[in-house]
Amino acid sequence: MHLTLPDPLHLSLAVSGEKLFVTYLLQADVEREALEKAKDICLEQTVEFPDDLVPPGSLRDTIIGKIVDFGKKDDTTWFAQISFAFETFGNDLLQMLNVIFGNISIKPGIKVIDIALPESFAGRIRGPRFGVEGIRKLVGVEHRPLICTALKPMGLSAEQLAEQAYRFARGGIDLIKDDHGLADQPFAPFTKRVRLCSEAVRRANEETGRNCLYLPNITCSADRIRERAHFAKECGVGGLLISTLLTGFDSMRMLADSDELQLPIMAHPAFSGAFVTSKANGISHGLFYGLFMRLFGADMSVYPNFGGRFSFSVDECRGIAEFCRRPLGALKAIFPTPGGGMTTDKASIMLDVYGRDFVLLIGGGLHRHSPDIEANARYFVQMLENL
Amino acid sequence: MHLTLPDPLHLSLAVSGEKLFVTYLLQADVEREALEKAKDICLEQTVEFPDDLVPPGSLRDTIIGKIVDFGKKDDTTWFAQISFAFETFGNDLLQMLNVIFGNISIKPGIKVIDIALPESFAGRIRGPRFGVEGIRKLVGVEHRPLICTALKPMGLSAEQLAEQAYRFARGGIDLIKDDHGLADQPFAPFTKRVRLCSEAVRRANEETGRNCLYLPNITCSADRIRERAHFAKECGVGGLLISTLLTGFDSMRMLADSDELQLPIMAHPAFSGAFVTSKANGISHGLFYGLFMRLFGADMSVYPNFGGRFSFSVDECRGIAEFCRRPLGALKAIFPTPGGGMTTDKASIMLDVYGRDFVLLIGGGLHRHSPDIEANARYFVQMLENL
Repeated sequence: MHLTLPDPLHLSLAVSGEKLFVTYLLQADVEREALEKAKDICLEQTVEFPDDLVPPGSLRDTIIGKIVDFGKKDDTTWFAQISFAFETFGNDLLQMLNVIFGNISIKPGIKVIDIALPESFAGRIRGPRFGVEGIRKLVGVEHRPLICTALKPMGLSAEQLAEQAYRFARGGIDLIKDDHGLADQPFAPFTKRVRLCSEAVRRANEETGRNCLYLPNITCSADRIRERAHFAKECGVGGLLISTLLTGFDSMRMLADSDELQLPIMAHPAFSGAFVTSKANGISHGLFYGLFMRLFGADMSVYPNFGGRFSFSVDECRGIAEFCRRPLGALKAIFPTPGGGMTTDKASIMLDVYGRDFVLLIGGGLHRHSPDIEANARYFVQMLENL
Repeated sequence: MHLTLPDPLHLSLAVSGEKLFVTYLLQADVEREALEKAKDICLEQTVEFPDDLVPPGSLRDTIIGKIVDFGKKDDTTWFAQISFAFETFGNDLLQMLNVIFGNISIKPGIKVIDIALPESFAGRIRGPRFGVEGIRKLVGVEHRPLICTALKPMGLSAEQLAEQAYRFARGGIDLIKDDHGLADQPFAPFTKRVRLCSEAVRRANEETGRNCLYLPNITCSADRIRERAHFAKECGVGGLLISTLLTGFDSMRMLADSDELQLPIMAHPAFSGAFVTSKANGISHGLFYGLFMRLFGADMSVYPNFGGRFSFSVDECRGIAEFCRRPLGALKAIFPTPGGGMTTDKASIMLDVYGRDFVLLIGGGLHRHSPDIEANARYFVQMLENL
């Protein structure tokens, strides 16, 4: 039985023939089950209609996803590459996420591991405004990984955080971000914190002749985020820190795209872990922290480094770096920004895994090394210079 | 060794004594490991600093989370209730999500299952504007579950979708939403679709004397979502459909709070599945689809019903309904809105599980029952009347 419609179904879609290709891993006991899952994705992500209700003709031919590749990976895992017509999402990046992993995010045993975008679509996305090259130019460091630290802990006053920022900048740190938990708490209110920390870093820059960037955390409600970004810009900040899964992907994209702001964006992974923690469900580390963050305008994507207090593997981290750089239209390459317990030994392993184009995010270690955080900063910058 | 600061650490926080209580399930092989995880949450979600770097005194006493309850659940699962000072998030709902499950979302084996809010905080959240009572008043149905359907499939023209809406409204459907995949595609552009479907439902309402609500999908980029909502309002829509995880939680809250819009909000779960699919990680179904959606202003929260083409259990669905209704300050109770393959048998089980206050979301079944979708709508409304 087919769909009953007021008029005979005559769709005359101007279909470009351009497709989005998405690769899924499918958990199943037998091949037939995996193939059913793949077919289900084709329907669920487009017409959201049982197969027997979809009429023949152009709707079936154009709108429903198509399996273009399918095979076995291991005993319980298959892969399927599915193509979706460009017209299912148009120029809408959020709707593209919806086509890739909307309803099927709720079905168990489906993991998205790769996508290939229509050339025409990739060409219309601005993506990161600065990228690796732009950020390197801003901080004036071309030859080594960059180093970033966070103002912390939550609970300090704006004055205390600003003094910390001053010392880190004096010590040669390239990028100083707010700890992502600093919001607008009474002990260090947003406007006061951003004003004092910007001033502190500017003062240090005047003294050192360098250009350390301060990135305040502007994560906040949807109706105030633009205002906070503009306030930060007026204070002379060097960029913005955004917890992308808290604000929503597109709030980050909106700020990255703003010609009035023109500020580097650092994406923070808070609240995002559920997307990647399962082997069977969700989205691969590379696609999520690499390509998705990049498509939505991040110049730097923060995530926990392998071997730290979180549990990302070396391969997962390598995957992130690959997706940060993979050639894609005119989209700029961005900085993987791994954080977590840092030692000299570890830094050289990181150089093997990431190459020179990464931002080393260092927190506790910079406080622990000695009581003098300015000296500690110098020590770690020197460590990177010597790699 | 303790944190080195420019001045001796004299925090003088005006701490209210009010706390947020969060309950976590922790996967571990032995109790010591579970307790370490609980202690780690206390630090990671606040100071984000190793324990030995946090100085004694008021920062330690007030900012760091505190374990208030801890115990064993089964062989590999423990629970911990942790309290966080109100001051760690202030009046900021997103920052509250960050304190609840920011960085630790990335650590394996941690699942959030419950929260208790400070009274004063709950009192400052508007939450859902209409809730169960308000929506029932709008549609004029007090005695039975409401029935909602979706305009589909993607690929139909705006005219075809409007004709479908007209017939459903004529047949007595209470709420008609866009399929969540309808965005601004060339075959049914947003403005044309919303204008035609609003008109169609208004015409049907004039004929039936009822007040069927049409809810267009306004999920889109951060800089256009307000504009779309206002356009929809001008067209006379009955509410808004939002894919909350695509737009971000707070975009939904912003629209729910808008005194100019004053429209019911239906939250769609697209892209959210990763939060709930794992037993060991993420957020419980009830907390996520029930309370979180409600705190951020949804009047109706869509999710897949038990026994349908997704895999939620009866208990998980019951959990959602409980969190939709749990008394919490002045926060209105909202409609659990389960969707998925519907039969008469199933409807009476749903009545047992949910009580009368739910919205039955029905899609394919309404098209499949017979070729006359208006008659099909009557049939299903009657089925609900007879429960």
